[in-house]
This record gives sequence, structure tokens and C-alpha cells, in this order.
Amino acid sequence: MNFTWGALILAAGKGTRMKSVTAKVMQPILNEPMLLYPLNALKGCQQVATAVVVGYGKEGVIAYLKRDWPHIATIEQKQQKGTGDAVKVSSSFWENYDNLLVLPGDVPLITSDTIDLLMRRHLEKGSALSFISFQASNAVGYGRVVRAGGVVRIVEEKDATKEELKISEVNSGVYAFSTDALKRHIKSLECKNAQGEYYLTDLVEIFQSAGERVEVVLGEREEEFLGVNDPFQLARTTALLRESILARWMERGVKCVDPSTVWIGPNVLFEGEAFISPNVQIYGRTVVGDRCNIGSFSIIRDCRLESQVHINSHVIIENSSIGREAVVGPFAYLRDGAELMAQAFAGKFVEIKKSKIGARSKVPHLSYIGDAIIGEDTNIGAGTITCNYDGIRKHPTIIGDRCFVGSDTMLVAPVELDDDVTTGAGSVITDNVPKGALALARARQRNILGWKRKK
Amino acid sequence: MNFTWGALILAAGKGTRMKSVTAKVMQPILNEPMLLYPLNALKGCQQVATAVVVGYGKEGVIAYLKRDWPHIATIEQKQQKGTGDAVKVSSSFWENYDNLLVLPGDVPLITSDTIDLLMRRHLEKGSALSFISFQASNAVGYGRVVRAGGVVRIVEEKDATKEELKISEVNSGVYAFSTDALKRHIKSLECKNAQGEYYLTDLVEIFQSAGERVEVVLGEREEEFLGVNDPFQLARTTALLRESILARWMERGVKCVDPSTVWIGPNVLFEGEAFISPNVQIYGRTVVGDRCNIGSFSIIRDCRLESQVHINSHVIIENSSIGREAVVGPFAYLRDGAELMAQAFAGKFVEIKKSKIGARSKVPHLSYIGDAIIGEDTNIGAGTITCNYDGIRKHPTIIGDRCFVGSDTMLVAPVELDDDVTTGAGSVITDNVPKGALALARARQRNILGWKRKK
Amino acid sequence: MNFTWGALILAAGKGTRMKSVTAKVMQPILNEPMLLYPLNALKGCQQVATAVVVGYGKEGVIAYLKRDWPHIATIEQKQQKGTGDAVKVSSSFWENYDNLLVLPGDVPLITSDTIDLLMRRHLEKGSALSFISFQASNAVGYGRVVRAGGVVRIVEEKDATKEELKISEVNSGVYAFSTDALKRHIKSLECKNAQGEYYLTDLVEIFQSAGERVEVVLGEREEEFLGVNDPFQLARTTALLRESILARWMERGVKCVDPSTVWIGPNVLFEGEAFISPNVQIYGRTVVGDRCNIGSFSIIRDCRLESQVHINSHVIIENSSIGREAVVGPFAYLRDGAELMAQAFAGKFVEIKKSKIGARSKVPHLSYIGDAIIGEDTNIGAGTITCNYDGIRKHPTIIGDRCFVGSDTMLVAPVELDDDVTTGAGSVITDNVPKGALALARARQRNILGWKRKK
Repeated sequence: MNFTWGALILAAGKGTRMKSVTAKVMQPILNEPMLLYPLNALKGCQQVATAVVVGYGKEGVIAYLKRDWPHIATIEQKQQKGTGDAVKVSSSFWENYDNLLVLPGDVPLITSDTIDLLMRRHLEKGSALSFISFQASNAVGYGRVVRAGGVVRIVEEKDATKEELKISEVNSGVYAFSTDALKRHIKSLECKNAQGEYYLTDLVEIFQSAGERVEVVLGEREEEFLGVNDPFQLARTTALLRESILARWMERGVKCVDPSTVWIGPNVLFEGEAFISPNVQIYGRTVVGDRCNIGSFSIIRDCRLESQVHINSHVIIENSSIGREAVVGPFAYLRDGAELMAQAFAGKFVEIKKSKIGARSKVPHLSYIGDAIIGEDTNIGAGTITCNYDGIRKHPTIIGDRCFVGSDTMLVAPVELDDDVTTGAGSVITDNVPKGALALARARQRNILGWKRKK
Repeated sequence: MNFTWGALILAAGKGTRMKSVTAKVMQPILNEPMLLYPLNALKGCQQVATAVVVGYGKEGVIAYLKRDWPHIATIEQKQQKGTGDAVKVSSSFWENYDNLLVLPGDVPLITSDTIDLLMRRHLEKGSALSFISFQASNAVGYGRVVRAGGVVRIVEEKDATKEELKISEVNSGVYAFSTDALKRHIKSLECKNAQGEYYLTDLVEIFQSAGERVEVVLGEREEEFLGVNDPFQLARTTALLRESILARWMERGVKCVDPSTVWIGPNVLFEGEAFISPNVQIYGRTVVGDRCNIGSFSIIRDCRLESQVHINSHVIIENSSIGREAVVGPFAYLRDGAELMAQAFAGKFVEIKKSKIGARSKVPHLSYIGDAIIGEDTNIGAGTITCNYDGIRKHPTIIGDRCFVGSDTMLVAPVELDDDVTTGAGSVITDNVPKGALALARARQRNILGWKRKK
Repeated sequence: MNFTWGALILAAGKGTRMKSVTAKVMQPILNEPMLLYPLNALKGCQQVATAVVVGYGKEGVIAYLKRDWPHIATIEQKQQKGTGDAVKVSSSFWENYDNLLVLPGDVPLITSDTIDLLMRRHLEKGSALSFISFQASNAVGYGRVVRAGGVVRIVEEKDATKEELKISEVNSGVYAFSTDALKRHIKSLECKNAQGEYYLTDLVEIFQSAGERVEVVLGEREEEFLGVNDPFQLARTTALLRESILARWMERGVKCVDPSTVWIGPNVLFEGEAFISPNVQIYGRTVVGDRCNIGSFSIIRDCRLESQVHINSHVIIENSSIGREAVVGPFAYLRDGAELMAQAFAGKFVEIKKSKIGARSKVPHLSYIGDAIIGEDTNIGAGTITCNYDGIRKHPTIIGDRCFVGSDTMLVAPVELDDDVTTGAGSVITDNVPKGALALARARQRNILGWKRKK
């Protein structure tokens, strides 16, 4: 028999100790909001409809979800009255499913396997409420799992007795509910506690009092349930994720000179071998082709690198694609849909924006190329600039195959150079240039003999 | 009753193992001379008049003190005859005070709290000599504190017996003296020891023989008394200071992706939240406003960043100020009093020196702007250069509001562009341009058809 | 009596777990192929004629040896039939020597001292076969040394019994043979084992059965025998080498702000004190003069730095030489035989290729200087470019002493500026300029009043 599942991610809390205007779940981990991680974990599970409960800093959370997770619902918790309240105000969402997962938004290390285990055990045992506990090496900050007389309770730290504080088994904050039972009992939650909030944890006792079956699933890896409450935990969690992602790729042949200084985002893909120098960051949905080489002090975000691309040191590439055997840098910045075709070269102190550089074409030095289409086998002289902006709008520059653009050529867009065009060094090109022509715009040199410089 | 205090920092030693032409106390820690740290610690204590005893490499030390600590006296120890001699030659300084602190110049981790404790205990007990000892996890290199028959002695390592070498309680080198007693006894120091030097430590025995009260104050944190004698200890101390400074800021909301690669100097201030990418260095008297973002591979020294400044990666900023919501980089270098006003932009491969860029004005690409004043809402085209140097002197460039300076404009200073001026791409501007004018200086383009390039 | 020695480095294996198209011994460690390390260790020993057995990826290995180790022979093992086969197919090499060392190509941490010890012990004992064993903290992956009834055997892991797997004494893969005995017995090798290969290790038993003397030399430092079989071990070995090289230099006075982020290659030399900021890489045959300063995020390869050179941050220098007190960067790239003479300056966003910059001359901003010779005391204006390429060939630019090249000067090569020449900003210089002349090539400025920009 098939049961339907909903999942609720609790992301409304402020996270006071984070000392931030940003919602805690929007704090970045490997260049992605923390919230991506539980969402990714849920995506890796069997079919689960997910909603996110938002509150503090909700604009940021909603904007992110709209852009990257458009199918995920958001539910606003207007007042921060605790986790129990967050689930209560979401009932119109979860009433549609047989079962409900509840996850904190700030446990980014949780895995699909662990969530799957909880779901499986919940169904197997026919429980009304299941939650994951774990043995904490340091229980401070967690709710303790108190087992006495066949009954289990979760006591929040602020409400715990001295004896209870000694317990090392703690609540992970990850639950599965039968929504029928949840509907029956959630209204029994009260807020008579140290924080004056509705604790979701109180349902454990309430359910048992009502004779419902409650199951504790012991999580094995403490790490998975690390909460992120302050800048230290944010850094620590980032480090753990960094290491586990990198180890996965190194097993598959990615070579890092210094793994401790290489940052690979959770959605990056390597298609084969790669060689990565110290101090490299690769983020977003970047795909790195086979046998690519990435130099030190480089940052790559949301790019496609074909095979055998050579990225020198000090290179930034964002939202761009780099063809087979192309070479970039050092000191280059490619962005906003730059396209380097196979064996093209973008060199030193070169910025390329929203432009296509044809196969085997070169932009070796000190150039800004924006809104341009450059053909194949063309050489762009040092210091060449596409003057794409007239103060109001951006205009295109089109350059053909086999052109030789002289150094310091200003290409005043919109302008077009046909194939086989040559321009003289230092020319300002304002008019189109026909195929095979030489375009010049410069004054003749005069040598004034015996000239005295001011002293 | 109030007693006056002097403090003497011993900074004359060569530090042979450092293998340097620079005085040991001038070796940098987080971009500040080591000497800054005990001076800062003393500054944090109750009123103490401070002098520094200089010797090896004294020119560097004196120059530094003159510039950064003009009220602090220097006393020259002409020959390196030991710590006892250093105090002796400084008598004309310390005779003016009731009590004297003596600190080594090479224990940068010492805190104000510990010095305060020593001063308090010295006065409370009415001691003639007090010094701080501590339990060393590795005593090698330190003078041992020998306690026998109610008498305490400090034995330098080179003069210690085998049994004495086993003692783990060691001398920190931090002392408090009653100057009256010091005056009476310092002439009793002799140099009959392994190194042929006057040991300040011998005063411990001399004072007791003369019936003076000697007090040992046990320091609690071994770390504070780490001496810096070689490049390894320099690096280790730097790391410890780095970590403690960073932890302080992270507690207040500064977020570091990778705290192990972030370097914050001791005099840097964060006014609120900040987000710092891996591999960032912030030094000197930099103040970072609320919600600033600092990109990787960036170095900031002695700057003022207003709130919500966005520093991209690969940016160097020195002695400059950056207005609210301004954006810098990547690949930018601002220096020598550059001022970016609110929401201004200094972009890619851009150097700005001793210039003011008005609110919302932009210098996006490949430009050198030196000795210039640029108004508001002005756009500086790619490749624009202020030709500020005539081989002899630097000259100013003044640009008004709402100007549009075309790409590759050479501004031959001194020159002035009034408000609303436009310049054509590739123009060399040698004369002033009146309000609202278009300035052009370029040759007309010619297309020479059927031109054959050399093969 | 003198015996001759040959040495065979086994470098034919694929190293499957490395998941690479490159031969395992060509994987880089500190910017040098792994193979360099055993070759360097052998070079540090008494006279040993060396040959390398190649196989998988042999083209790369052969090319490297030809370039950097031209006196070293290569022997091809056509099929990968094991270490025993590798030695067998090399007989025409080792038959020329009295004794033969055999080393794996993938133990880069081995030292000359250890090899020397093996050679000495082999001769002293008059053994026919000697090999180094060591106590492994984790024996997994190594052949076990089984000692029973006065006989020693090496059992490969895949052929070992459960009991044998518990043995922690393992084979290092480093052997010494008497070549006479080797000749007699190598044909007895068979491949009846789990991998179907000829194991060199079987010779241990074969030699003993034939009454030959076999000696086990216990290696003391496990680290030295670490094999490199996958990207993790490659990174770990790199880290160990990095640390040991750096410690050696720090002992001699090199100061590193953060030793954990400084990378010094095995062939780099420091001539005295040096100060190195975080995140610096120095590779190849670089020599760093006394009191040099190397800024963060800089990479130096195969360069000569004279004394007191100041390298700012974000600098790349390759195959270049930098004179005394010269200053480079930030954001500079010098390559292919660039030469900066004493006190010269290559500044911000500057690339210098195959050019000589005379004493005290400056290239401060945004320039590309290629194939040029610049005299002394010359100033190159911002944005100056040597137009050295005509689409077919590179041409030289020659500039004399005391020249003042205006900003944005295009030097269309071949072209020559004599001493004391001045060029006007924005000039395209196509013809030679005589001594003391001013060269101008630009249009006169026109101010068009009341000009309306498009809106």
C-alpha cells in the first residue's frame, strides 16, 4: 500500500546568535543558502511534497525558493511562537498527505538515507509519531530524550532538571507524523514552559498519553544532526560539507594539490579527471569536463567547462561556457554568458562579458569585450575595447573570421567587421568595415627634434 | 593611596635564531611589529608610563615608535650585556616612578588582565619584587623557578643543574619592582655566569638575601608567555593571535566561510555583521561597516568601509575610504587616499590613487585614475587614463557630474571637464572642456579595401 | 674494493586508483613530477647509474626525462607483467654493474640516507639480495614480511593468509641485488599468483632456496616508504614534502606568516632571510636572494630574484629574473625571460614578456611589454603597449635611457626610440624616434558646445 508524504521544513526562526539581518536558513554554505541542503536531501528521497515555513527574513527565503525551487510552497508563520505553532499554522498543507516529515531548516548535513530510514521505520511500525534521536558527544543546546517507565519524553534544555541535563541522547528535530493523529492532537499543545512557546516536542508525551504509538529512531552519525546556530557552527558545518564533497570527487580521480583549500559546491559535477591547484573555488551548477586544469586563486561559478580546458591562476568565470582545450587567464574575468569556443584564448587582464569568442580566436591582453560576437581564428590586439555603452544602452560588436584587430582598437558599437578585416593599432572604429579591408583612424606621426621636457 | 608606575619593555636583543637584520621586536605579526602587542597590553592597563629599551636594529624600532607611539620614550642599551644591564641603563627613566614593570618585548600574547593582576598583587603584598611564573608544558629555553628552604631563585637554563632542568615552573620574564628597592640592589648584579651577562633574574636572590619581600605570581595561561625566538615561534604566535582575534569577531556576528584563512589585525574594527570569504586579510586601523561583504583573495589595510560595501574577490585597498553600498573589483587596487562615495563602483583592472569618485559614479574597466576628483553620476569609459605625471610632477584632473567619458580617453592633467561633458572614445584631452560640451580628438576612419596582410 | 652500482626505478605501472591518463610517476608534487623525488634521492647518493622502466603513459615520462634528466636511460616494459618482469626486461642495463638498486617510482619521500644505508649494509654483509622492510601503522596494501624457521618471505596482500595479513612488518619495495645472483635466479620467477604477474618479491624465497644470502634492512621512518596510489595519497605526500621543505628553510631564517599556505618546490633556493606572506607558491629552480619579500597570492616559477626584491601580492613570475631592490606588482605577470634590472618597477595590470627593463625604469600601469629592450631611468606611461605581433611574426621594440613614453602610446614594432625621447599620450609610434625628440601622433582636440547625448 502506498502512503503519501508531505514534508515541512521549519525555517522561520531568527537564529539570534547568528547576529544577522538575514534569515538563518539563507546563510550561505559553499555559496548556497543553508536551506538548499535539507531540500536536496528531500529531493533524494522517495516522492515527498515539500513546504517551507518562513518567518524572520522571509523575503529572502521566498525569493530564493521562487527562483530555485518554484514547486515548493511557502507558509508564513506570522509570530514566532515555537515549532509546535509552525506545524499548527501549516495544517492546510499537511492535511493533504497521509504522513508528514518535519525537518529543521538548519541541519544541512542530514542525508537522504537517514530521512528514508525514518520514513520506512515510521510505516513499518505503523507509528503515529517517529523521531530521530542521537547520542551527542556534547548535549548542550539540545532537547534531552528522557526514557522512564516505558514512556519517552523530550525535555528542552531550558526546562530540564539537573539530572535530565546529564542525558546524552538528544532530539534531532527530525520527525515523522501520521497526519490523522497529528490533526487530533496538535491542538493539545500548550506554551507553559521556560520560553513561552509551543514546543513540537511536547507532542511526544501527548501522543503517548493518548495511546498513540511513538517510535524513537536512533541516528548513527551525530554529524548529520549538527545544528547551525552561530558563525562558528556555520563555519564548522561548511568545513564538514566541503570535506565530504571533495572526498567524493577525489575518489573518482579529481586531484587536489591541497584539498584543505579547495571549495566545491554541492551541485558541481566533474566528468572525469581534473587537476586542481591550491585555493580554488568551484560553485553553483558548474560542470567540469575531463582533464581540466584549474589554477590557484580562481573562482568558477555556474559554468560549463568542456574537456581539457586550462584555467590559469587568478581567473574568475561566472555563468559562462568554455570550449574544449580553451585557455583562460591568468588574471581574466569572464561573466554573464561569455562563450569561449574550442581552443580559444582569453588572456591577461581581460574581461569578457556576454560575448562569444570563436574557435581558435584570441583575446590575449588588457581588453574588455562586451556584447560581441567574434568569429574563428581572429586575433584581438592588446588593449582593444568594445565601446558597447553609449550612456543609455548597450550595443553589439560583430567581428568576422580571420580578422586581425590591432592593439588599442576602440570598436564603437554598434559596429561590424566582416571576415579578414585588419584594423590599425590605436584606431577608433565607428563605421562597419567590409571583408578584407584595412581600417585606419589615426594621425600621422611627427618627430619634433630637440624637444626639452620641463624640469 | 596611589602609586605611580613605569614600565620598561626590553627590546634590545638580537634574537639570533630569528636570523634577521631586523630587530626581533619589529618582526611582523598580523602586519604589525611584534612590539605593538605588549604596548597594546600596557595601554589596556591602568596608567603606566612606558619606555622601550632598544639596541640591535634600533633604527627600525625608534622609527616605529616615533610614528605610532610618539609619547613612548626609548632608551638605548649600547652593549648587549643582559637584561639586568638593560634595566640598569634605564634608571633615569624608572627612578621617576614608585614601581616599575619590566616586560620582554617578545611575548606578544600577554594580556592587560595578567599585567593588572601582577600590579595589584605587587601592591597588595607590599612586595619589593614580584614576578610571574608559569607551568611550562615544555620548559626548554626558560629560566627555572627553584624553590628551596623558603627561598625562591630563578636559574637560567644554561646555568642549571640536571635536577633543576627537570623543574617545570619557569620564569615568564615579567616583573614588578619597587623602584626604591631596585635602586638599592641593582648595582649588586654580577655577570659570573655561563653567558657572561647581567641577569635580571639574579635580583630575585639578591632581594631575598637583603630581606626584601619577593612574590611569585603564578600565571594561568601558558600561552600568554610564549616567547618568540625563531621563525617557527613567530608563525605559531601569529596563528594563536589570529585565532583569538577572529573568535572575538565571530562571536559578534562576523561570518567567515573558512576562519583558518582569514587574517584580521589587532586594531581592525567591525561595526556589525560582515561576511568574509576564504583567504581575506584585513589589517591596520581598518573599520568595516555593517553588512559588508569581502571577497576572496582580497587585502584591506587602514581603510574605512561604510555599511553594505561589497568588495569582490582579488581586491587590494590601502589607506582609502569606501562609501555606503559602493562596489569594488574584482581585480581592483585602491590606494593612497582613494575615496569612493556612496554606491560608486571601481571595477575590473582598475587602479585608483589619491582620487575621489563621486556618488554613483563608475570606473568599470581597465583604468588608472590618479590625483582626480570625479563628480556624481559620471561614467568613466573602459581604458580611460588620467595622465597625471609629466615626468616631474603629478597634476590634477577634475571631472564634473553626469559626465560620460568615452573609452580610452587620455586626460592629460592638469585638465578639467565641467558637468555634463562627453568625450569621444580614443580622445586625448589636453584642454578644459566646458559644461555640456562634447570633446573629440581623433582621426577619421578610412577603410582601405582589398588590403593584403603579410604572410 | 669498489663495486659499481646501477639503479632501476620502476615507473611502468598504471596506478589504476589514480584514475588518470597520465603515468602515475608524472603526477605532480610541488609542481614537479613524482619521479623527480626518487631521482633526486639517488643523485644524493654515491655514484649510481640510473635507468627508468617505463610503460603506461610512457611518452610523458620519456619526454620529461629527456628534458630534465638527459643522462638517464629509459627501458620500456611492453606489457605490465609485474615488477619481476620489469627487472627481467632491464637486464641489458643492469648486467653492466656489480650491484643493482631497485626502487618504486611512487615512493617520493625516500631519502638519500636510507638508500645509502641499504647500499652499505648490502656490501658489508656480502648479501645477494637486501631489501628494506618497515613497521607499518596500517599494513593494508603492502606485502607482508613473513619470518618463519630462519627463512624470510614477502607475501603480497592478495596472496596472504589471514594470519599473514596480521603482520605489520611490510616490504618497502626498495631492494639491492648482486647482479651475478640476480642473473642466475631471475628466470626462476613464475606468475602463479592471484594477479598472474611476475613478483619481484618472490626472489626473496628463490634466493634463499638457492643458498644465497638475503638481508632485511629495517627502515626507521615509515613516512619515507609511503606509496602514492590515489589522489588522497598524492595530496598527503605532497603535504608531508611541503612541510619538510619549508621547515628546512624556516630554520635558516625564512619567515612565513602562515607556513600551512606556503608552497616551496624541492629545487628552490633561499640565499638568506626572506619574508613570505600567506598563500605563496615558489616552484622550479627559483633562487630567492637575501631579504626578499613575497606578497600573498603570488606564484613564482623558475626565477632568479636578487636581494631585497619586493614582490607585492597577486604577482606571477615565470622564467624571469628580477634585479636587486626591484618592485613588482600587485597584479603583474612577468614571463618568458623577462628581466627587471636593479630598482626597476613593473606595476599594476602589467604584463612583461621576453623583455629587459633597465635599472630604475618603470612600467607602472596597464601595459603589455613584449619583445622589448628598455634602457635605464625610463618611464613607460600607463596603458602603453608594444604592438609586437603583426599576425605572423613578433618584432622587437627598443627604447633608450631617460625616455618618457606618454600614456597609451602604441609602439608598433619593429620600432626604436633613442635616448631621451618623449612621446605624446595616445600616440601610435610607427617610425623610429631620434635622440631627444618628441614624437606625436594625434588629432587636435575639438570641443563641440551644447552637445546632446541620446536619452
